[in-house]
Amino acid sequence: MKIGLIGLGKMGYNLALNMRDKGLDIGVYNRSKEPREEIKNEGVQTFDTIESLVDALESPKVVWIMVTAGPATEAIIEQVTPLLSPGDIIVDGGNSRFSDTLRRGDALEEKGIYFVDAGTSGGTDGARYGACMMVGGDEKAIAVLEPYFKVLNVEEGYLHCGKRGSGHYVKMVHNGIEYGMMQAVGEGLEIIRRSEFDVDFEKVANVWNHGSIIAGYLMQMTKQAFENNGMLEDIIPRIDALGEGQWTVEEAIRLGVSAPVITQSLFIRNASKDEGKFSDRVVAALRNEFGGHALHKR
Amino acid sequence: MKIGLIGLGKMGYNLALNMRDKGLDIGVYNRSKEPREEIKNEGVQTFDTIESLVDALESPKVVWIMVTAGPATEAIIEQVTPLLSPGDIIVDGGNSRFSDTLRRGDALEEKGIYFVDAGTSGGTDGARYGACMMVGGDEKAIAVLEPYFKVLNVEEGYLHCGKRGSGHYVKMVHNGIEYGMMQAVGEGLEIIRRSEFDVDFEKVANVWNHGSIIAGYLMQMTKQAFENNGMLEDIIPRIDALGEGQWTVEEAIRLGVSAPVITQSLFIRNASKDEGKFSDRVVAALRNEFGGHALHKR
Repeated sequence: MKIGLIGLGKMGYNLALNMRDKGLDIGVYNRSKEPREEIKNEGVQTFDTIESLVDALESPKVVWIMVTAGPATEAIIEQVTPLLSPGDIIVDGGNSRFSDTLRRGDALEEKGIYFVDAGTSGGTDGARYGACMMVGGDEKAIAVLEPYFKVLNVEEGYLHCGKRGSGHYVKMVHNGIEYGMMQAVGEGLEIIRRSEFDVDFEKVANVWNHGSIIAGYLMQMTKQAFENNGMLEDIIPRIDALGEGQWTVEEAIRLGVSAPVITQSLFIRNASKDEGKFSDRVVAALRNEFGGHALHKR
Repeated sequence: MKIGLIGLGKMGYNLALNMRDKGLDIGVYNRSKEPREEIKNEGVQTFDTIESLVDALESPKVVWIMVTAGPATEAIIEQVTPLLSPGDIIVDGGNSRFSDTLRRGDALEEKGIYFVDAGTSGGTDGARYGACMMVGGDEKAIAVLEPYFKVLNVEEGYLHCGKRGSGHYVKMVHNGIEYGMMQAVGEGLEIIRRSEFDVDFEKVANVWNHGSIIAGYLMQMTKQAFENNGMLEDIIPRIDALGEGQWTVEEAIRLGVSAPVITQSLFIRNASKDEGKFSDRVVAALRNEFGGHALHKR
């Protein structure tokens, strides 16, 4: 059974190679031509249009979407849906907000089309060699897809979490936790850096990754970051985000859950991108107004 | 060369068995008799007094202390010091505050005694089968101890961080990071629990530990916690602490570092132990005073 994969970005491209290596029959489409040409040279069958790709699939057709969450995913689903029939399956392997997944799933269900959310972790290396997928959706569609999930992920790295939306929900919270963990690492290392102790950060991250309680994938990446970037002087302290931390905090607020650490991690990212820092100016100005404390002026 | 180990608590007892298994010549002392008797039956040489233990060591004598940080460690060092000669070595394998380590080390240095701080991570299993040690101290003492550090820890799980105090400092921050990471995990799982999705928490923790970005030792323990305790209903939501998170926050404040996530994690532990919750009463009372909002009364 041929799988139709749409989207050859960082994740999609690597997942396509992973699928090829696992001997899966795949066809891929990407809007821009370059990655299509590139992956064709890697021995992957490509299609120039979504229509021709979907046309080449057998029933039940499986279309696996790996594009950026939001309008890009929405647009692809809108293009693909009229080409499908009842019993066919769309997999959203991107980081869509679970509420979008619920809305899209309901609309597709009315047409008899299965919609499966497959939150994918493990980064580009995971997509390439074995990822971790948190999957939500109808048992019938999962039964068709399970053999693929099993070979594309590391052993035990696939879970059918529950009903539609649960895969993206669990993946969203996973990323929220990741925000908090990363922020804790950053804060701790900053304290050491400002202390009287002159330690080798690459070596500290390395020893923390061998037998300690905080050992794990993030600590491996921490070690690698110092290995690749020295003391990180060339890195602008601006932390981008793709939305999942924000959605996690929105969920905490909606559900009335106390989640200060994940929230702080999000706010720190927000502050890191705020070059104007109006709020800091307000506080500095107030100190000056009531206390006459000096202002730093341009 | 015989090592004298003092303290057979959870960590010391397991470290003694680790030392025995690695073929090290050790003698142990513990204030209370029961663990002494117990470990004697495990084939470890025991001593009834600190004096007899230290007397049985050859020069340079190595006394390895594994007792609770604070007064207990202080008392043992006071008892051991008069029994030692210049060139002898005291290892503090406990979680002492680095500032205590600096003070004790300076005093011992005046007597020509080396003081080595060996912050030990990996929990009781680590102490037993292979730990992670962050070590600070003089090169000469480290040279004597290095063969022991290498066999007692997992491969690459030992680092001579730098000068005296750096081992306990790096271990302190390690635990501060651990506070933040654990809090992020707790918050994320609470959000999922309160959501509309009914997922199996043991399975979620398990999949997160196979190929995901947040995979690691803490996630293995998360899985194990759900395996052992179901949905944790029997666990009172009170989080004890041993001091290292607090010291990390004290350091952040002393150094002028922004560390909101580690600080929040500490404050949440403080709040979890505060049964009176006076601050919550104040806020509830204020709402009532100015807004007439109902109070929950006993």
